[in-house]
Order: sequence, then C-alpha cells, then structure tokens
Amino acid sequence: MAEEARNKQVVFRDFVTGFPKESDMILRTGTIRLKVPEGSKAVLVKNLYLSCDPYMRSRMAKIDGPYYVTSFVPGSPIVGFGVAKVLDSGHPDFKEGDLVWGMTGWEEFTLISEPETLFKIKYTDIPLSYYTGILASGAVGQLVGQFAKLMGCYVVGSAGSSDKVELLKSKFGFNDAFNYKEEPDLNKALTRHFPEGIDIYFENVGGYMLDAVLLNMRLHGRIAACGMISQYNLEKPEGVHNLFCLITKRIRMEGFLVFDYYHLYPQFLDVTRQYIKEGKIVYVEDSVDGLESAPAALIGLFTGKNVGKQVVVISRE
Amino acid sequence: MAEEARNKQVVFRDFVTGFPKESDMILRTGTIRLKVPEGSKAVLVKNLYLSCDPYMRSRMAKIDGPYYVTSFVPGSPIVGFGVAKVLDSGHPDFKEGDLVWGMTGWEEFTLISEPETLFKIKYTDIPLSYYTGILASGAVGQLVGQFAKLMGCYVVGSAGSSDKVELLKSKFGFNDAFNYKEEPDLNKALTRHFPEGIDIYFENVGGYMLDAVLLNMRLHGRIAACGMISQYNLEKPEGVHNLFCLITKRIRMEGFLVFDYYHLYPQFLDVTRQYIKEGKIVYVEDSVDGLESAPAALIGLFTGKNVGKQVVVISRE
Repeated sequence: MAEEARNKQVVFRDFVTGFPKESDMILRTGTIRLKVPEGSKAVLVKNLYLSCDPYMRSRMAKIDGPYYVTSFVPGSPIVGFGVAKVLDSGHPDFKEGDLVWGMTGWEEFTLISEPETLFKIKYTDIPLSYYTGILASGAVGQLVGQFAKLMGCYVVGSAGSSDKVELLKSKFGFNDAFNYKEEPDLNKALTRHFPEGIDIYFENVGGYMLDAVLLNMRLHGRIAACGMISQYNLEKPEGVHNLFCLITKRIRMEGFLVFDYYHLYPQFLDVTRQYIKEGKIVYVEDSVDGLESAPAALIGLFTGKNVGKQVVVISRE
Repeated sequence: MAEEARNKQVVFRDFVTGFPKESDMILRTGTIRLKVPEGSKAVLVKNLYLSCDPYMRSRMAKIDGPYYVTSFVPGSPIVGFGVAKVLDSGHPDFKEGDLVWGMTGWEEFTLISEPETLFKIKYTDIPLSYYTGILASGAVGQLVGQFAKLMGCYVVGSAGSSDKVELLKSKFGFNDAFNYKEEPDLNKALTRHFPEGIDIYFENVGGYMLDAVLLNMRLHGRIAACGMISQYNLEKPEGVHNLFCLITKRIRMEGFLVFDYYHLYPQFLDVTRQYIKEGKIVYVEDSVDGLESAPAALIGLFTGKNVGKQVVVISRE
C-alpha cells in the first residue's frame, strides 16, 4: 500500500444562516499519509458509508458557548457518523482490518485522533451500511414507529409525500399515516386520526406540528423530544403557543440525546438485529454513490427528498 | 335563626375575552333559605374567607369541550376556594358548626350540593384564612420558594415591584430576587443570577419568562409547570421559541394540577402546619373586607396589585 494516497474531501465552506445550500460544501482533493504518526494513539481509516442526519444542520451554524454539538470547522471536512475500515492503528483496541462505526470525516480516508469514540463492528451478517442508520445514528422515524407497533401501540405517521405515506403504511406497517403538506389544518388532521387523543408523541418536527399535537394530547400524555427538523433552517424558531396544554393535561415533555444512552447500545444491537433477522423490523435506505453526491444528499434532508435513511456510499469494501 | 336571610352575591356577568374588568362581575343582593331542602344531601354554609387565584381567569372564558375547569355560569355567582361554616347539613359527614374549606360561591351563604368535595378543617390553632391559601389553594410562589429553601436549594424569585423583591428576600428568605419589570433583558437577568444555570424552574409565568429560562437551564434540568399567568388574558398566547433547548439540555418539563394530588393533602397539612408553628415557613396575606371589594381584588392579581396571597374576608366568624 502506498504511503501517500489521494484523499477526496467534502469541505465545509463557512458558517450558514438560513437554508443550507450545496455550495456551502466544496469538493477538494488532497493527499494523506496512510499511516498513523509515530507514537500516536490515532487510527487511520478508509471510509465506506456516511450518514446524513438532520442534526448536522446545527453544526453548520456558528455556535457560541457550550451546546450539544460543536460547529464544523470552515476549511475542514464535514464530520458525521460513518462506517469505516481500519488501515493502520496506534491504539491497542484497534488493528488493521477492523470495521468500525462512529464519527469520521466526509473524505476517503480519515485520521481519527480519539478512536475511543469508535464502536467496533462485531456482526457482519447484516449489511454494513445499516451501521450508519438503523443500527447506529438514525432512520429514527421509521424505527420508532416500528418499535411502537411491536409494543402494541396504535401508530400514525406523518410524512411529506403520498409515496412516503404509502411506505409507512404498507412497508413499515403503521396503522395509518397522513401527508402533512396536504393538510390545511394539522389540528383537524390529528383529531381525525386520534379521536380519543394521543398518548405518546415522538417529537422530531417542532413548530406548527407540535402546537397541533399539544391540542390533541390525552391527559397524562408523554412527549419524547428527539429533534425539531422544521426549525433548523429558521433564523428564529417559530413560536409554540399551546404549552398551557402541558398543565391542563398534565403532559410530560422530555428531551433526550443519543449521547446519554450509549451504554445501552449492546442491548439495542441485540434486540434490533434479532428483529431485523426475523423480519419484524424492516429498513429502507436511500443511498447515493460517491462523495460528489454527498452535499446534495445532505441538503435534500431538509426538502424531504430522501425516501428512507439517507446514506452516502464511498466504497463498498 | 331566620329561615330566610339576605344573601349578597358577586355574580359573573358574561364570558370574558382579553383583560377582565371589575364590571365583568356584578354585586347583587338576594335572599336564601338557611336550610337544606328536605331529603337533600347538600350542606348550607356561611362563607367566611374567599380565595382569589389566577386560574379563575380560565373560568371566565367560554370553554368548549373538556378542559381542566369549567366556565363560570353567566348570571350565577363566581365560584372559588373558600373557608366556610356549616349552618345546616343533609349529609352524614357534616353537621352544624363544622368548619370546611373547598369550592364555594362568592356570596354570603351557599348551598353546596356536592359536599363530598369539601374538606373538614380539623385544626384551628392556625388562622382560618390560611385555609384559603398556604394550607389549601394557593400562595404558590411564596410557599414553593420557602419549601425549596428548606430542601437546600439556592432560590431566586421574580416579582413585579421592588417592595415584593424586598419581601422575597427579607421575609421569605429567598437567596435573591429581581424585579422582572425593570429587567430590559430577562435572559441576561437570569444569567446574572444563575451563572451556572438553573436546575429547577417552578413555572407560573409562561411566555417571555419561560423563553429566557429555557436558555438558562442546566443539563438535565427540570421544569414543574403549574401555571402561566402572563398568558391568561391574551387572546392568543405568546409563542415560546426556545423549546429546542429541551432536547439539547435534556430537560424534563411536566405539567400538574392540584386535583391529582388531593390524596397527599393530610401529609401536606401535617408538614406545613409544623413548619408554620416553628416559624420555618412564613406567610403573607393581602386581605380585603367585604364582597364589595372582591371584584377589584380578583382583577388586581393580573396587574400584580396584591402583595401576598389575595383573600377576601366576608366574615371573621
């Protein structure tokens, strides 16, 4: 193996306000030495699959002070969850040939200086790309709905096109689904689907949807707040007006981040792998090939272009 | 005792939108028979003290569908928490001379048709009026702050005048307090008082205050949502923009109503009476005399006129 290799990269241009554009990312080709520096505990990986996730929008903003993520660094590659193969390691826990998932760069090869943050992939009886999605960072909506079904819930999904609505019902087995873009009144749409009210709302949208949900929650209902994609590209988030419902209906609303629950990952992996093998959970990916396609794939999340988990394939090996 | 007596009443005129006015209530003098109807399980009470509480604003609105309270009935007396003395009883649990607290009318005498909702007052070693406030329906802010202090919290209060700020600090022993009306930027005020962030926020305000609090909460902070007085007189509630903080800081926000916790009342009463006797908790009342003063007292809650729990004294015996 040559010591210096070409390294195509997707570089973050500069901090973004408002809706992000493909041109906020630049393709650049550099070179990289495929060895970890002498005495370093870093690992050098070849990236295989990259994950596109809505939270990455937060990292495109200039973040002052402590926050749940840090800003991307202008002039450096985009960073995100990915699946990679170890080419060289200065760390005792990793060796050449290991497959890993975790934070990596949007480039062909990455020198990861804190490999403690990586997870080793033990099971390869399931497609490797799944470790950018259902088995790791995302595909949240489809997975939550299916888990809820398996736990006996009546599940209604909201999506932005009739194809997606169909997918939720036919492929994922949701009890029902609706196209929020075709509903003139979200409150009425929810009342139609939940005439007796909503017990549990998995919050990934925010804004108007949350306001309509609050009106339709049942007494003692629960809202698990995971994300608010409708707000990420706004200079100022929309106001939510119906919070008094939290009191009148004694609702619990609680935010969470995956970072707090990594200790449960082995358990999650066991359960989910089993469900996948038994066909009790299905998974839909929307994958594009090549780093050249990565900027459009990321931006597409915010217009709802993707159908299923958005993955970028750099290399299948 | 004469069977027919004069009965002065504060009558609810009609449903209110926007800011309520004294003229939304009308003084009327009628008569009442001071006996419960033959065969009825009602009790007939003489009202002594009435409680003025912010939630009563909700009952002045026209409420369609299920809600945590029902509308007042136009043409009938205002209804609220009060302390009363039983003059006649058709119910086996109550007898003439019993002192009770619970829902009663804003009038001299009330026939209470569901006396099961009343609590008998067992202890009279503490002023009776306290059963409209610290020992029953309210004075929430002063009590919560003092309980928090007793539990070892660092407590900062927010109030609407410098006199009240002084009261919070000197009388109630809060660690600090500020006048929200004099703070051009609530976010900065909170950052000044909580440089390391807020662990617990007791929510009784809503709107701008909640937005500023969300920015200043600590990771895994908790918000107990009890009321949102800043919103009650608005045709449309203000928007709250910073809810994404719930996620990034993993905050739990949960609403509650006193109705769900009546089973804990005996325990609360034991603890709080003891604290009062030991001087560990103090209590400030703002009382006015006579039903004539009741409408202004109720309206005054929304301009912050009252200093301490607002009580209307109808009769001291």
